[in-house]
Parts: sequence; C-alpha cells; structure tokens
Amino acid sequence: MEEAPSGFSSATALSRGDLEEGNVFAPRFDADGLIPVIAQHAETGDILMFAWMNAEALSRTIENGEAWYWSRSRNELWHKGASSGQVQKVTEIRTDCDQDVVLLRVLPQRAGACHVGYNSCFYRSVHQSKNGEIRLTFEETEKVST
Amino acid sequence: MEEAPSGFSSATALSRGDLEEGNVFAPRFDADGLIPVIAQHAETGDILMFAWMNAEALSRTIENGEAWYWSRSRNELWHKGASSGQVQKVTEIRTDCDQDVVLLRVLPQRAGACHVGYNSCFYRSVHQSKNGEIRLTFEETEKVST
Repeated sequence: MEEAPSGFSSATALSRGDLEEGNVFAPRFDADGLIPVIAQHAETGDILMFAWMNAEALSRTIENGEAWYWSRSRNELWHKGASSGQVQKVTEIRTDCDQDVVLLRVLPQRAGACHVGYNSCFYRSVHQSKNGEIRLTFEETEKVST
Repeated sequence: MEEAPSGFSSATALSRGDLEEGNVFAPRFDADGLIPVIAQHAETGDILMFAWMNAEALSRTIENGEAWYWSRSRNELWHKGASSGQVQKVTEIRTDCDQDVVLLRVLPQRAGACHVGYNSCFYRSVHQSKNGEIRLTFEETEKVST
C-alpha cells in the first residue's frame, strides 16, 4: 500500500486496531493509487456497478455529493452522468474494516447505470447445467437507456 | 488481462458484443489471476463483504454452493466459515457487463460476516464536518460475533 495522498489521513500511521475500530478515515489506495468502489441503489439495494476511485475522485465525491470515479480504460477522472445524465446522488459513503474498499449508496438521477443500457451492470446470472456447462442468464431483459 | 484458467471460457476469444451481451461466462481474472467479489445478503440486500477469488475459488463456489475466496493476506484458498461457522450459502451468482467482477447473493449461516465482529464489513460511514474534517461514524454498534 502507498502512502495516502494529501487530503486523507495515512493508514500506515494507524495501528490495526485504530484502522478497524477507530473513527479516522484513512482510505488505503492500492499500488496504482486506486480503491475499489461498490455503487448500491440507496432505495432498492440493487448493486448498480463496480468501479474505481483515485484520491481526487474520492475527494470530489465527498465534497460534491455526486459520484466521481477514475476510468481505468480512459485513464481520466469521470463524473458519472456528465454525458449520459445518469448522475448518482450520494446518500451515504461507507468503508470496510480495513478501509481498502468504498461503498456508495446512491440515487441515480436517470434510469440506467450501465453503459450497455441496463439499470445495473449485474444484469446476468451464472448457472451450471447438469452436464457441467456454465452459462449466463439475463435477469434484466429490457434496456432502460441507450 | 490473462488467459482464462482451464474450466472457464476465454474472454479474449470473445468480441466485446459477445462479452457484454452474450450468454458465455468468461470471467476476466486480473494479472494476479484474481477477480473482485461483492457478497450481498440475499434477503436484506446489505453488502456484507468484499473479497477476491481465483479460478479455483470460483469453480468451488459454483460447484458447492458455498462461498470460497482467495485470501490475499494468507495467500491461500479460503472456505468462508470453515473455522468461524459463518458459511455463506450462495443463492445467486452474477457477473457484470465486462465480466471482471462477481456478485454473490448469500445467506450467512451464522451471524457476523466480518472478522471484526459485525454483520457487515461496512459498519462505518464517512462524514465531513463543516470545518472539513472527515471522520467515521459507526452504523453498527453491537458486535454479533467474536
């Protein structure tokens, strides 16, 4: 783990007890400076998407109350919904025991969190048939955005 | 991304359209051979934990219907609950649009998914005070296991 970027407390300065049971927020970014983020619909509980933040994206999310991510494919900060209108209003931010994951509870401002067009990126379930073959089944069948 | 380990279809052989809109399960493990996993309570919708799987853990989870992970700290396969009793019965497995994340919907067989003792690893929320200070607030205050 790297030293925390400025603006956040450093996890390396904390004991394990303080990291896990204290009230100091010391997000642990990985060697690439990123932290995984789960975005959950605040009302339905559905998992909408999984993405990454760097320190700047996390700071902006905390400051602005809308979700910002780091796009690993485009290598740039990404204000979710800036082009699609699918802005995510953040109702709560949580972190996990060892502070290396962020959970956002969000209210999407327009249907469709996934670029493919579905409400959630997790629109397919995994099933194994009796002959051992593993296939995907669509749990969402209608696209809500294009 | 690496080639898929044996037992799963190779994502590199699929077009982007087939990866995102097809029914072939081709989980995309990262350069370390791991894929991130979100474990969600099947009834409450609560996010219980975030962990990683290698191909073997994913295969065992699909075969056995209980959650197996890869422990990055212990560098070994990890049958969740084998020592704690906090076995997670898997009711559904999903993957996301580009198949590089796994979502498990689970029924914990004993209270407490987190090693710290709480139901969820996400027992703290992040808050910024008016003076800009960022602190954690406990959303779970009673430990359910030790």
